[in-house]
Amino acid sequence: MNEFKDELNLKVKETYDLIKTFLPKEEGLQKRVFESMNYSFESGGKRLRPLFMLESYRLFGGTDLKLIAPFMAAIEMVHTYSLIHDDLPAMDNDDYRRGRLTNHKMFDEATAILAGDGLLNFAFETINDAMNKEEDFTVLKRMAAASYILSKKAGTYGMIGGQVVDLLMEHQKDVPLETLLFIHKCKTAALIEASLMIGALLAGASIEEVKKMEKAGNNIGLAFQIQDDILDITGDFEKLGKSVGSDEKNEKTTYVSINGLEKSEADQKNLSIEAIDIIDSIAGKETFLSKLTESLITRNS
Amino acid sequence: MNEFKDELNLKVKETYDLIKTFLPKEEGLQKRVFESMNYSFESGGKRLRPLFMLESYRLFGGTDLKLIAPFMAAIEMVHTYSLIHDDLPAMDNDDYRRGRLTNHKMFDEATAILAGDGLLNFAFETINDAMNKEEDFTVLKRMAAASYILSKKAGTYGMIGGQVVDLLMEHQKDVPLETLLFIHKCKTAALIEASLMIGALLAGASIEEVKKMEKAGNNIGLAFQIQDDILDITGDFEKLGKSVGSDEKNEKTTYVSINGLEKSEADQKNLSIEAIDIIDSIAGKETFLSKLTESLITRNS
Repeated sequence: MNEFKDELNLKVKETYDLIKTFLPKEEGLQKRVFESMNYSFESGGKRLRPLFMLESYRLFGGTDLKLIAPFMAAIEMVHTYSLIHDDLPAMDNDDYRRGRLTNHKMFDEATAILAGDGLLNFAFETINDAMNKEEDFTVLKRMAAASYILSKKAGTYGMIGGQVVDLLMEHQKDVPLETLLFIHKCKTAALIEASLMIGALLAGASIEEVKKMEKAGNNIGLAFQIQDDILDITGDFEKLGKSVGSDEKNEKTTYVSINGLEKSEADQKNLSIEAIDIIDSIAGKETFLSKLTESLITRNS
Repeated sequence: MNEFKDELNLKVKETYDLIKTFLPKEEGLQKRVFESMNYSFESGGKRLRPLFMLESYRLFGGTDLKLIAPFMAAIEMVHTYSLIHDDLPAMDNDDYRRGRLTNHKMFDEATAILAGDGLLNFAFETINDAMNKEEDFTVLKRMAAASYILSKKAGTYGMIGGQVVDLLMEHQKDVPLETLLFIHKCKTAALIEASLMIGALLAGASIEEVKKMEKAGNNIGLAFQIQDDILDITGDFEKLGKSVGSDEKNEKTTYVSINGLEKSEADQKNLSIEAIDIIDSIAGKETFLSKLTESLITRNS
């Protein structure tokens, strides 16, 4: 396990070193928005989405870091903007994230809105810059498909769609399971699906393989979310970085409140095993990506 | 003049008919965000940016409406999202726009934030969808360049950058002319530049021609802004749709307050003439695009 942790730390560092080169320079009259964008981008954790993307790219034999890096940076920018806007007073109204002031508390609300817009726009600016320079038709086609996947999974049929429904359900009791699964699939799983799909696609995977990675990503996202709900009930709040079981307190409908603890734990385990099996079946052996998946969705063990 | 007005009305209708086909269907669990996006998109005026794009495309001999239409829709989505976020309480805090409730007043603040995010994301989703289906390398290269231009002109080095600096200067007196020009160039001119450049580029114009259209767009944007400032002073508020000379009341620094009315009027005229000359020099004759330009920047005559 310590060997895996050492490898993980190295990969997390490699990932961050790759993506940070795309950050805007903090200069010019609009300097404040660059400072605000970078403040939130730099306060991230394990960079799971770009890490998943990089390892999926490698799983399918990809070796050109210059090709995958702008997409890795872009998905982290999308993730970061979504957190900035999520924290706004009109949304979750949070003052802290990962122990640091949220963007609108560190800067101000208007700047936080524009920094979020700026990061979402900059994600596509970064990808478009790379596409604009690409001279190989096959590679450009793959990049266009990858960019389409990112925009779809991040948008109103993906992540934003999940946020909208989550907001609508906030003060409702008895949310149907179907609705809850829609929220988790869109809000949590969509960007993980995009990470795994884009990595595979840019390495030249077939449509069937990309679909398999989408399924793995969906499983990982859902397992991750169920685990969060389980930890919220069983009270292991420290691992969640929470001081209280917030879902339970709010009487929020969760996967566990609908299905019970036992079935939730079994479902979470089965989703995880299936995801790991998909990944291992492609490599024909255990890989860092499957070990990473296992480590993430068995945090409670 | 009436002939021009009839032509304009036809072109405005043609433009809207082309771009409205890209709007999301108001269905699904996240229906509310689609309603919110469409509410603001549908309450637009003359659709100047997609109209400029279409006419620039035609100026350079473009005839494939299927190629240009997704880019026309995308730039209108970007423009619409910027208005939704601009109107938010933390920004300009406006209750009405073009006589209708602003998005956050019609829906709520959280929905307006997400609808804005949704439109910005959907702009690139729309372009990416088209690129993902394109099988001709030359066309795909042009689309990638066009998408890059849109993202650059809309982002933190373009429109968003201008909004940031405009916010920073809001309560400052004696804003330097250089800063004021940066705001106008980014906030007002950048999307007009993008419209004219993308139209030219997708029709196969050379780099030099695209640069000329950028210059024309910059002139039009700046002339438009100076005219706004002039009308704000001379009191022809009806044409601006304002009930009071708001800049004057706020003692805001404007092009006119720095340069005086006479020089401002001369500059506005020269910028307009230069833009029209660029457009006419390409066509070798007067075109709808140059007539449109003239009609827009001589509203005060």
